Amino acid sequence: MSFDIETRWQAWHEVVESKDSSRLGDFLADEIEFYSPVFWKPKKGKMAAFIILSTVIQVFEGFVYERRWLNGREWALEFRARVRGLEVKGIDLMTFDETGKIVRFEVLVRPQNGLQALGEEMAQRLAALGITG
Amino acid sequence: MSFDIETRWQAWHEVVESKDSSRLGDFLADEIEFYSPVFWKPKKGKMAAFIILSTVIQVFEGFVYERRWLNGREWALEFRARVRGLEVKGIDLMTFDETGKIVRFEVLVRPQNGLQALGEEMAQRLAALGITG
Repeated sequence: MSFDIETRWQAWHEVVESKDSSRLGDFLADEIEFYSPVFWKPKKGKMAAFIILSTVIQVFEGFVYERRWLNGREWALEFRARVRGLEVKGIDLMTFDETGKIVRFEVLVRPQNGLQALGEEMAQRLAALGITG
Repeated sequence: MSFDIETRWQAWHEVVESKDSSRLGDFLADEIEFYSPVFWKPKKGKMAAFIILSTVIQVFEGFVYERRWLNGREWALEFRARVRGLEVKGIDLMTFDETGKIVRFEVLVRPQNGLQALGEEMAQRLAALGITG
């Protein structure tokens, strides 16, 4: 494995917690699959993942990571945030390739009212960018 | 820490995957807090957690654990199952006390239609037991 896990974690959580999308692309593999908390079917490709992730880090207010489980190239990151004033908890499940790019990104969110608010807010913002479904 | 993580994991996943509620109580601390994927507020106490968990392992069809992150007393377990015919993915976040009892249990489920089906099915079954909200 050609990347240092702790360094990569530090860089990742700075990108997300500072809402700095300019460094987001560096983390995404071209063939990344993104699994949203709302829909079953993944979105494929770096462009789709970039648009979704850069939007979602704007939607979440007060986003902070809490516990983290970093097992080599398989990570689970717990977070807490607010969406439209509702408290949510979530988990990012990330799989990295050997160079430190994310090839699989899955997000789970609870509770149900927060997940619904997130889905509505994301649909609204993505529709404004001309993206649906 | 007075329990062996790998042994405890083997015992836990056998209980859940075999739907054997008779050994469930052994894993639950008296003061356990259970955070459902549907509601924000936890249910407190062993009796509440036992009823919810023994019900949910009946509700899930084809339940299997996939990846697991076992860091001492903080575990994250990925699972896959079906609810009312819908595919779901989920994460169990578990915190153990030093004797190997679970003191905090949080569940996250995706996608939204599966979470909603789970919430409806659980509400129906718990209402039949005289338990609400």
